[in-house]
Amino acid sequence: MEKISGTAGQVIRCKAAVAWEAGKPLVIEEVEVAPPEAMEVRVKILYTSLCHSDVHFWEAKDQLPIFPRIFGHEAGGIVESVGKGVTDLAPGDLVLPIFTGECGECADCKSEESNLCSLLRVNPNREVMISDGKSRFSINGKTIFHFLGSTFSQYTVVPSGCVAKINPLAPLDKVFILGCGISTGLGAALNVAKPFKGSTVAIFGLGTVGLAVSFFLCFEYLSCLTFYILLKYEMLSFLSYEQAAEGARMAGASRIIGIDLISKKFDLAKKFGVNEFINPKDYDKPVHEVLIELTDGGVDRSIECTGNVDAMASAFECVRSGWGVAVLVGLPPKNAVLKVNPAHFMMNSKALKGTTFGNYKPRSDIPILVQKYMNKELELEKFITHDVQFSEINKAFEYMHQGGSLRCIIRMDD
Amino acid sequence: MEKISGTAGQVIRCKAAVAWEAGKPLVIEEVEVAPPEAMEVRVKILYTSLCHSDVHFWEAKDQLPIFPRIFGHEAGGIVESVGKGVTDLAPGDLVLPIFTGECGECADCKSEESNLCSLLRVNPNREVMISDGKSRFSINGKTIFHFLGSTFSQYTVVPSGCVAKINPLAPLDKVFILGCGISTGLGAALNVAKPFKGSTVAIFGLGTVGLAVSFFLCFEYLSCLTFYILLKYEMLSFLSYEQAAEGARMAGASRIIGIDLISKKFDLAKKFGVNEFINPKDYDKPVHEVLIELTDGGVDRSIECTGNVDAMASAFECVRSGWGVAVLVGLPPKNAVLKVNPAHFMMNSKALKGTTFGNYKPRSDIPILVQKYMNKELELEKFITHDVQFSEINKAFEYMHQGGSLRCIIRMDD
Ligand SMILES: [Zn+2]
Ligand SMILES: [Zn+2]
Ligand SMILES: [Zn+2]
Ligand SMILES: [Zn+2]
Repeated sequence: MEKISGTAGQVIRCKAAVAWEAGKPLVIEEVEVAPPEAMEVRVKILYTSLCHSDVHFWEAKDQLPIFPRIFGHEAGGIVESVGKGVTDLAPGDLVLPIFTGECGECADCKSEESNLCSLLRVNPNREVMISDGKSRFSINGKTIFHFLGSTFSQYTVVPSGCVAKINPLAPLDKVFILGCGISTGLGAALNVAKPFKGSTVAIFGLGTVGLAVSFFLCFEYLSCLTFYILLKYEMLSFLSYEQAAEGARMAGASRIIGIDLISKKFDLAKKFGVNEFINPKDYDKPVHEVLIELTDGGVDRSIECTGNVDAMASAFECVRSGWGVAVLVGLPPKNAVLKVNPAHFMMNSKALKGTTFGNYKPRSDIPILVQKYMNKELELEKFITHDVQFSEINKAFEYMHQGGSLRCIIRMDD
Repeated sequence: MEKISGTAGQVIRCKAAVAWEAGKPLVIEEVEVAPPEAMEVRVKILYTSLCHSDVHFWEAKDQLPIFPRIFGHEAGGIVESVGKGVTDLAPGDLVLPIFTGECGECADCKSEESNLCSLLRVNPNREVMISDGKSRFSINGKTIFHFLGSTFSQYTVVPSGCVAKINPLAPLDKVFILGCGISTGLGAALNVAKPFKGSTVAIFGLGTVGLAVSFFLCFEYLSCLTFYILLKYEMLSFLSYEQAAEGARMAGASRIIGIDLISKKFDLAKKFGVNEFINPKDYDKPVHEVLIELTDGGVDRSIECTGNVDAMASAFECVRSGWGVAVLVGLPPKNAVLKVNPAHFMMNSKALKGTTFGNYKPRSDIPILVQKYMNKELELEKFITHDVQFSEINKAFEYMHQGGSLRCIIRMDD
């Protein structure tokens, strides 16, 4: 017996934070949200938060500008209604919309090795629904475009394959932050880097000068598992050092060295497991050489979070011969070229890997992480530093730029 | 009760094939072989064979010339005597000297993840014993240098950590070929690429024009697991396509596509498991694009055997998003730079790995492979195509250059 909500099949008018132009403050507008089409779900968003990738595509410095657009992709909510053919979700289900999907039917979904669903894999440049090439958002007939889950709206429509159904008893205002960066950091460490107990694990991050001097990036870009370098404005990272450090802590890394050009970041980093710190400015040689000496041959694992190709190269250089693995998490700029010495592979048995969303399959694995939180096997609270009402959503951007925010809960139900 | 051979502790005079100059035919000379020092073993060689890396360092085109030198590193023999401190080997033991060692005590040896012994890892530029910086070979007082195991001598001295003790009942004239390339190919596929059942596995090889037109390189450089490209003279590969194909066969790959510029190579390749063949000359686009189309998205694994950086780049490009792994086996030229699109890591979850000796620990694992041969789980015969007496060792070089040889047994006991 399916619950039928009063709004099913109808356009819903609700509040959404619309980005009308690149880099301009969001404007709370009344939008129309069309009903879900086949294999789609309409979700009432209760909590959302601001992530680096929202900012990256909102700034649109390295991207095609697509506006007006509704950003937001890390969120939790309740299914309001489902489109035709959706049998595994029903109105009332507690869910996390996830920025990348899992259709369950394609070769990738059927493989244990991939989380990059052939049909629903993340595509931040997609601005409309796959099914009909149309947006579900409009204001007086004017199309407002999607961005991933478009969760900066009280209601949103997403493919059912992009919705993780979680334990209905889960505290949504905590677990919704598993929808992006935190799971990415955990998975990059646990599923990809797979540090062994006692190992030294590195995260390289190269942020922007602008972000480097902001307090938020002190948080978000400080290295954790082993390294973090903040050299110059190149890219926003989708993964913070805290997220990666949490992954390393769970995996049992014993040395977590933070590297940053801003030494004052280290105090905060300590609270997230970083137990050593290097400021490359203190040395007159490349930081990977410093780290190789410090660790007597190289770190066991490194995780590169910024997407800067120089940091990627250093992350690969600094891992130890014999078993070193460098994991690339940061999104590189378009047309970036990574140059490496190939002898490190054949002669030194190093490996270079990458991951999206920490290799987690969104619908299969995220409910398990939610359960881990409920079992007190995973700590989330310390990532939540701020809390605002939806009407104050632009404050979340301010907090991020001020550097005082890790995750800022944006409460939709006002 | 230890067997004491009559020659223990004495200099042995025996025949060795000495390379006096780069690229010049070896000369059978009578050499003096000093007794083993502490932690060394003197081995009576019964069978050896010529490998690409012998030729590579004998030609010395990309390497510092070190002459006069005794080449040879793939061999089988019997321990003649042991130096002080050697407790795990005794005169009479059937052994394979291996080009890379396993001391058993270092961090690498103690790790399950590494086979690159910190002390005894392969170093083809080392021309003397580690212990005292001296050679054990001389002719009338003139030093003759080592190259790896220097098995082109009826007796040789090697560190005990570079000697794998095998089943005394093993047919040495077959299993000695497990000492280098065949194990490398097997291990690259089984231990590193790890193709799943039914997968398509690729080997890229870029050989030299000179080698490409030789019959031997038709054999040795033809791709097997998926690809083999032979473009231009850059490097010698230490791994043949047959060796890699054998690895792929055991791992259960269903599509093994050979790529080569010389189409006539395919007939022979078929006998080693290659079931598809591409000649890049038949296409007007990069071979990785051809292969991505042919496999509807990319191969599951690729193995690059030549060391050419363009082939490495193609091997990485051609693997499938989601789970593709490219394994680099070919030794790159000095100062080579590999350029890759880093988005393939983060966005596409591809991985790039490397391996020396197929990740096998020489002393721990090779005796197991020998046993697999004895259990008929591993086929070696088809790799042995020629058979010469030691006095005719230069014929092995000829066979290799003619292209009619895979492995040529060189019999020392004449
Ligand atoms: Zn799928
Ligand atoms: Zn995000
Ligand atoms: Zn060792
Ligand atoms: Zn060899």
